[in-house]
Amino acid sequence: MIKRSSDMITEIKEQMRGGKGSVNITHIFKQNEINGKSRMIARITLKPGCSIGFHEHVNEEEIYYIVKGKALVDDNGEKHELNQGDASLTLGGESHSIENIGEEDLEFVAVILLYQ
Amino acid sequence: MIKRSSDMITEIKEQMRGGKGSVNITHIFKQNEINGKSRMIARITLKPGCSIGFHEHVNEEEIYYIVKGKALVDDNGEKHELNQGDASLTLGGESHSIENIGEEDLEFVAVILLYQ
Repeated sequence: MIKRSSDMITEIKEQMRGGKGSVNITHIFKQNEINGKSRMIARITLKPGCSIGFHEHVNEEEIYYIVKGKALVDDNGEKHELNQGDASLTLGGESHSIENIGEEDLEFVAVILLYQ
Repeated sequence: MIKRSSDMITEIKEQMRGGKGSVNITHIFKQNEINGKSRMIARITLKPGCSIGFHEHVNEEEIYYIVKGKALVDDNGEKHELNQGDASLTLGGESHSIENIGEEDLEFVAVILLYQ
């Protein structure tokens, strides 16, 4: 199955998980298109200063892979600056947040893998 | 867990799946770092003219998400040109190939989800 960028559905969420500003979540494939154990495969865009607040993942894990821009990631209590090509993995029972601390849009791919 | 791009392991494969030239597979996280049902989460780079040959996925599915460049994807028998932001999904029992038909490097994120 081919999915054009122009055919992907984008959700806009405000103050997501208690974060700042708005978040654009573009679903690369929707959960009902996937047969594997994943509930989200998305390109997420944060404008400068915007963030997704600190939140826990339970019975699932999430990978962030930075495509463009500069991020501050709180990785289960430790803060790290991530740049293009860097990644984070938040296992089940762990928490994270991400903020755009650069001057251009921050784009990253987010993959949530379910444990059950 | 944070993984810097500079700490990721890159495999170089020649004529992968019968394709042309070489393929760089940079493992964003290795399978033993992941608890979810995935066996590969990688950034793959193909130089112009290089390709991964047509091959089937059994009991698993693969997503390609184009980060940069221009690709020709054979999606289970139908050929499509994919550009930045486009994606393909190859379900279990289906086949695909990918070739860099542009003049710059082709970069894409590949995620393989296991069915069991």
